Amino acid sequence: MPSRSRKKSSPAELLSLNNHQSAYTKAGVNVALGNEFKSGIGKIVRQTHGPEVLGGIGGFGGLFQPDFKKRNIQHPVLVSSTDGVGTKLKIAFATNCHHTIGADLVNHCINDILVTGAEPLFFLDYIAAAKLTPDVVRSLLSGLSRACKVSHCALIGGETAQMPGLYEPGEYDLAGTIVGVVDRKKLLDGSRVSVGDFLIGIPSNGLHTNGYTLARHILFKKMKLEFSSKPQGLTTSLQRELLKIHRSYLPEFQAMTALGANKIHAAAHITGGGLIDNLPRVLPKTCDALIDTNSWRLPGIFKLLARGGALDPLEMYRVFNMGIGMVFIVPQKESLIIAKKLKGKIIGRIIQGHGEVQLEAPKQLME
Amino acid sequence: MPSRSRKKSSPAELLSLNNHQSAYTKAGVNVALGNEFKSGIGKIVRQTHGPEVLGGIGGFGGLFQPDFKKRNIQHPVLVSSTDGVGTKLKIAFATNCHHTIGADLVNHCINDILVTGAEPLFFLDYIAAAKLTPDVVRSLLSGLSRACKVSHCALIGGETAQMPGLYEPGEYDLAGTIVGVVDRKKLLDGSRVSVGDFLIGIPSNGLHTNGYTLARHILFKKMKLEFSSKPQGLTTSLQRELLKIHRSYLPEFQAMTALGANKIHAAAHITGGGLIDNLPRVLPKTCDALIDTNSWRLPGIFKLLARGGALDPLEMYRVFNMGIGMVFIVPQKESLIIAKKLKGKIIGRIIQGHGEVQLEAPKQLME
Repeated sequence: MPSRSRKKSSPAELLSLNNHQSAYTKAGVNVALGNEFKSGIGKIVRQTHGPEVLGGIGGFGGLFQPDFKKRNIQHPVLVSSTDGVGTKLKIAFATNCHHTIGADLVNHCINDILVTGAEPLFFLDYIAAAKLTPDVVRSLLSGLSRACKVSHCALIGGETAQMPGLYEPGEYDLAGTIVGVVDRKKLLDGSRVSVGDFLIGIPSNGLHTNGYTLARHILFKKMKLEFSSKPQGLTTSLQRELLKIHRSYLPEFQAMTALGANKIHAAAHITGGGLIDNLPRVLPKTCDALIDTNSWRLPGIFKLLARGGALDPLEMYRVFNMGIGMVFIVPQKESLIIAKKLKGKIIGRIIQGHGEVQLEAPKQLME
Repeated sequence: MPSRSRKKSSPAELLSLNNHQSAYTKAGVNVALGNEFKSGIGKIVRQTHGPEVLGGIGGFGGLFQPDFKKRNIQHPVLVSSTDGVGTKLKIAFATNCHHTIGADLVNHCINDILVTGAEPLFFLDYIAAAKLTPDVVRSLLSGLSRACKVSHCALIGGETAQMPGLYEPGEYDLAGTIVGVVDRKKLLDGSRVSVGDFLIGIPSNGLHTNGYTLARHILFKKMKLEFSSKPQGLTTSLQRELLKIHRSYLPEFQAMTALGANKIHAAAHITGGGLIDNLPRVLPKTCDALIDTNSWRLPGIFKLLARGGALDPLEMYRVFNMGIGMVFIVPQKESLIIAKKLKGKIIGRIIQGHGEVQLEAPKQLME
């Protein structure tokens, strides 16, 4: 934003605010660089904006006027979630690859609100670093933008914070907040789940964004692998495997809507805590989820981690998604059709219980 | 969330998931500790929840059903903002004082949406650390909660992320996202501002949350002051001065609403970038804001920073709020009444220009 003082407005003085010699820059923060980003951000994020986004970039708040009528929503419930990408960031730092981690974050957040029945409205990001590097921020924002655009979610605001001394040079943190909307009568809260329902697991494409601290510990400290390694059981290098983008399940939810709104009794996004901690979020207190861990093929990365880490199988199911990124709980009689439609597997069923998860045959992963 | 495996469900094995010897803990992340926080959080945040908040804690998304009718809003525009508290965090770390920084964040975010005419609906936080310390997280959440409650803003969700290796032990980052609502016809976007309008400045109570990197550099590196120091011109110790909570201007906006909705032509929250960068956000391209920097008394902390840092006055107005935390742009004929009502000062006026800020007499601060 151009700015000047009435009594001190020579070009040289203005320049002095924008170069690297200002006192604020010396202390570690470059205000002018921050503003340059802000103007560059406009082009990248504007491609995610539809007619519901009001105003331009640079205001104090992002403005979004939801068209509830067009969205066919009578009693809007706003559904929101804040998340980060955990130490998957460390993989991005180590490989200097920053253009996919934004999509990891957006897709993670989208999945978190989809399970309530909501559709995404808008997203805000938070990027914090000791010093903002234009190329890195541009990569991050491009990744965020692309993922938002695909899911018709407006990237409506964000903060790029320069905090010298809080982050290591070359590192950053990335977090985001999504807001979506669901009609009150379509809200999925687990209350429809009952004994006899079936669980359909939809594959993950890898670790998604959870368990990276443990995975890095096993793969790089214990097993002493390299990013370029292609260990037995993986179809790609470790770098590509570990940077695979967290899958968005929006297409599966859209397919379910096409099948008929009341087909889903509940859905759970399998993130940190795995099947064991995430399914109970949508289980009634009188039901358990009984899961046959032999009903799907464990992807190579999890076998590798089990082998290399000599981990307790039970703990693995609590840290990693183990190849299942989303679980739909559906009526038994519809389960085969739905599983086929969504390219998922029937992985278990709802039995009487106490709102917990029971795993059958968790030992297979050690084979 | 209790969880168990059907074939591995002895209390000893369950315990092994909850103690500090699990592989995930050894790698630096304590899942059980994370869950313990999550259950403790409930009590603290629930006091911010009114009837518009649906569901409990622990779901995938925060649920908020805004009562637009009760709020007298016909065409809702959602206004959102994400922010952090910058390196004011470093003051909290150094003084081991974590119960006020949450309110800094909430109030900062509230002010950012108030200037669009919006009222707060809900807030989500993001806390990231190498290791979560229960006491610190509890302090942070209590601060967030208190500030949310005062402003009738529901603390509806959040993420507490454990990221070993990204943060120094004892340090953390704190960010947040606010969502508010304004009726389309009451949206403040600067379009009502015209030549002849007056600017009313409402005092800040200190640095708020901006300029801390430079301030710390000057006070502690250059001037070698201590937290317990009480330098000339300050009425309190440096620790207390630097931890003063970012003032919320919600009461001033409520007072303006009571005076009549169309009294405000625009408002600007004076944060990073100071008066020089923040006022242009609400100025038409044909108007400048002419500010008489002699029209208010510069608080002691800014004089101290000017003296100790030997800073270019112009740069100070671009880094610090300089004692003005909020600016209202109002019709000239109402300005005296409004200034009196809000305990503010008339600090300038709108003249023809190019959407920029002109400062009169910025040199006073060196005296």
